[in-house]
Order: sequence, then C-alpha cells, then structure tokens
Amino acid sequence: MTELADNKEKLFIIKIGGNVIDNEANLDCFLNDFSKIQSKKILVHGGGKIATGIGDKLNIQSKYIDGRRITDDETIDLVTMVYGGLVNKKIVAKLQSMQCNAIGITGADANLLPAKKRPVKEIDFGWVGDVSAENISSNTWKLFLENDLTPVTAPLTHDNEGHILNTNADTIASVIAVSLSAIYEVNLVFCFEKNGVLLDVNDEDSVVQQLNHEKYKLLKESNKLFAGILPKIDNSFDAINKGVNEVIIGNSSQLISLISGKGGTKISM
Amino acid sequence: MTELADNKEKLFIIKIGGNVIDNEANLDCFLNDFSKIQSKKILVHGGGKIATGIGDKLNIQSKYIDGRRITDDETIDLVTMVYGGLVNKKIVAKLQSMQCNAIGITGADANLLPAKKRPVKEIDFGWVGDVSAENISSNTWKLFLENDLTPVTAPLTHDNEGHILNTNADTIASVIAVSLSAIYEVNLVFCFEKNGVLLDVNDEDSVVQQLNHEKYKLLKESNKLFAGILPKIDNSFDAINKGVNEVIIGNSSQLISLISGKGGTKISM
Repeated sequence: MTELADNKEKLFIIKIGGNVIDNEANLDCFLNDFSKIQSKKILVHGGGKIATGIGDKLNIQSKYIDGRRITDDETIDLVTMVYGGLVNKKIVAKLQSMQCNAIGITGADANLLPAKKRPVKEIDFGWVGDVSAENISSNTWKLFLENDLTPVTAPLTHDNEGHILNTNADTIASVIAVSLSAIYEVNLVFCFEKNGVLLDVNDEDSVVQQLNHEKYKLLKESNKLFAGILPKIDNSFDAINKGVNEVIIGNSSQLISLISGKGGTKISM
Repeated sequence: MTELADNKEKLFIIKIGGNVIDNEANLDCFLNDFSKIQSKKILVHGGGKIATGIGDKLNIQSKYIDGRRITDDETIDLVTMVYGGLVNKKIVAKLQSMQCNAIGITGADANLLPAKKRPVKEIDFGWVGDVSAENISSNTWKLFLENDLTPVTAPLTHDNEGHILNTNADTIASVIAVSLSAIYEVNLVFCFEKNGVLLDVNDEDSVVQQLNHEKYKLLKESNKLFAGILPKIDNSFDAINKGVNEVIIGNSSQLISLISGKGGTKISM
C-alpha cells in the first residue's frame, strides 16, 4: 500500500471560506500563494457573505426552518449567480493573471459533481444536494489536471434532472479528495480564520499540531475543543478513513506553511 | 483545400440571444433540439434581459455615453453574476438532464478567450473586451471537444490582468468559429427571432435563402434589408472570409432545419 501510494503524484485540494472570499486583500494574498503551488491542485470555495448582501438588496431573505437554512427557488438562483458567477469568475480571472491556468466550475459542468436532492423528511431543505464520492467519476477531473488546468470549484452540484443544488463546500472538497485518492496522493487542506485546531479558542498559539483518532477522542471527552470545529474534524477523519493521504486544517493566510507541513493541524489515523 | 476540408470533422457553433434566454419554454425547446445534434458542438449565449431586471432591483442603471453602452464596475459584476452564473449554469444543468455533457465557461476559464480591454478614445467603454481569432489558442477547445464535452460559452472574456470583460456574443461565436476552422469544418449558426435575412422585415416568408457577396451588395444598395441585420451579415462574411465553412442565420425555434440546411439564410462567398 505504502509503495503504491509513493508512486502516486501529489494533488492538493484546498478549501477556502468567507474569511478569504469576503475580503479582497485576503483573497489576493491567498491566491498569490495558491498560484505558486507547483503540484497539481484544486481550489474549492464557499460562498461568503456576498450572497447575503446581494440577496438583501434583491429582497431575498435567508429562510430557516427549525434553525436549518432552506434553499428555495429564489435562493438557488441567488447562489448560482453569486457563487457560480461572481465569486467563481473573479477568482478565475485573478488566478489567470498570476499564470495559473484556472477553470471555474460547478458540479453541473461536465457532470463533475452529480448529487441527489436531499429527500424531504421532517424538513424540506429545498434545492440542497448531497454528494458522495462513489458517484463521482474521476475521469474529467483527471483530464483537467493532466492538462495543467486548475479547477476552481463553486459549492454547487446538480441533480441530473436540470437543477442546480446548493452543497456544503467542505463536503465537496472531501468527496473530491476521496474520489481522486484512487489516482493521486491527495492532501486536503481546510483553510479558515484560525491557525488550526486550538486548545483555547482565544489563543492562536494553542494549535494542536497532530491529531489522531485517539487524541481527538480524549480532547472531545474533556470538552477541550470549540464545538464549531468538530464537524470539520469529523469530516477530516472520514476523508482519511476513505483513502485521503493527509488532511490539514489551518489559517488561509499561512497557505505555504500549511502545504509544506509547517503549520496548522495535521489530521492522521 | 477542398480535399483537406472534407477530411475535417464537422463542428457546429450555435449562438442564441435574448429571445431564447428570456423565455423558459423557448429555452427548453431550443436546448432539447440542441442536445440532439450528434456532431461536435459549441453553444454561445448572449445575456438577455435578465441582467437588466436584476440590475434594476440592485439599483444598477444601464449607462450610456453618446448612445453607446458603458460597462462600469457595478455592471461588470452584474453581468458576471447573471451571464456567467445564472444563465450559463441554468443552461448547463438543463443540457446535462438531456444527456448532453455540457461545460459552462467564460473566456477567463482555461484562458479560452483572452481579450484586450477596449482602449479609451472618444469614449471609455469601461470593462469591455475585444477578441480576435489569432489570439485564441484552439488547444483547450479541442481538448474539450475531443473528450465529448460541449462548451456553453457566456459572453465574457478576460484581460489576463485579473479582470472579466463584457464582450458581444456574436463576436465571440465568430472568433471561436474562425479559430477552430483550422481543425474542424465549422458551421456557424446565428439564431435569433426571425426566420432569416428577410426581404420584408414584416414577412417571415420573405427569407433570402442564399446570400453571397454580390447579392448582399445589391440588396444593400437598394435598401431592401432591415438595418438591424447588417452587422450580423457583415460578421458572417468576415467569418467566411477567414475560413469558416458556412454561416446560417435563422430562427432559434427551427434549429434542426437550420443545421440540416433546410431553413434560414445560408451565407457563402
């Protein structure tokens, strides 16, 4: 297994969220670092607050049922415009100016991320899509990567019945990582506004540098971890269990450190 | 030359405008026909009126200087959202549901349509891009087509300096057609709301079935043609002169007739 893994080419899948997208200076800085990564790479971006601002102006209110966000007809059009259009193409144009041959995509494009509309049970989430790695064909992703194209992925999928679906960007990054682990040695990097998994959420120096199953269990049991980070960690262990080489969680302003193993939290078995 | 042309594979480049994009029933009907074309194909779409409607709600007014439309900072964001996001991804998702493996792109994606920001002379047009066939590399277009992907192209280009540019969809269709004529036998189809070039703009049965340079000159001199159609015809002759096999102008509701040579106006040398 190790021998096989060693023969695979390295691929970085890097996810960014609102703290990068919503701030032009942060975004330029991040993209500049990203463009310098020599290995094959994929960028997955979330939506940020731009959609909320534009939605307010268009009088499209965010809808919630029992505290869960709902994607109705108006909202899916809004996020398709903002995530798939404005945010995605702005990133692509900037990367092109940095000599990175980016191609902006949603999951509908080239059928890269087929999904299932979330079934209506207690809550009808509306146009929300669930993706799983086994439904993703790696062929077109590979075609792009082997031709030196860098996919920039908006958090949108589709149902193969003509509808765009809203999908969590962390989940998209994970399923692409799992799917492409069959071909590449995939390092998945979750960038956010903190320096990593912190023992004290107010102390950016309290980064847990290595986190395995056992240590995670202990930290969780002793309530040492900020609740907001738990889904990201669970997501990371899930990716590792399904073949991803390494997951790193850290600050988007330290991308070069994160990918060279000198910063953030490294998640392993 | 003829022998060489005969050896080339056929490629249809089809351009649609507002009459298709702004009407869901027309769009579904058109895309259904489009999805059935067995040859290699590229779709180029304009913007339609959706951007104006959304712009009004966002309080972004269309700007004009001396009657010429200007693309300022707000407007380029608006059209990037609407053309590159909403319109483009809606078309892609619909085509995917019709078993057509569409990939939505702007000219920034994969550097497919590098352009030059229009120089400021008497008028500053703002974020408007001029494209020319000689600056377009056919490699990535070919990569997509040879892998059974169908590019769906929004009327947006980029300046390689980080900016998306607004570009006329007819012009984009022409320059792609000219560029890819080196590889394929390209038939360029301009779809609009009329049955073709009409001798009487109020009579849809007055279609000029064949139009060559000589006939065009005569019709123009005798003022037989509606002024609005002249740029489309000039554009078509320009494409033919630069190696495009055939240009057809006709009604978007008759796509199958147009591509099988049974409808519309056929432009030739």
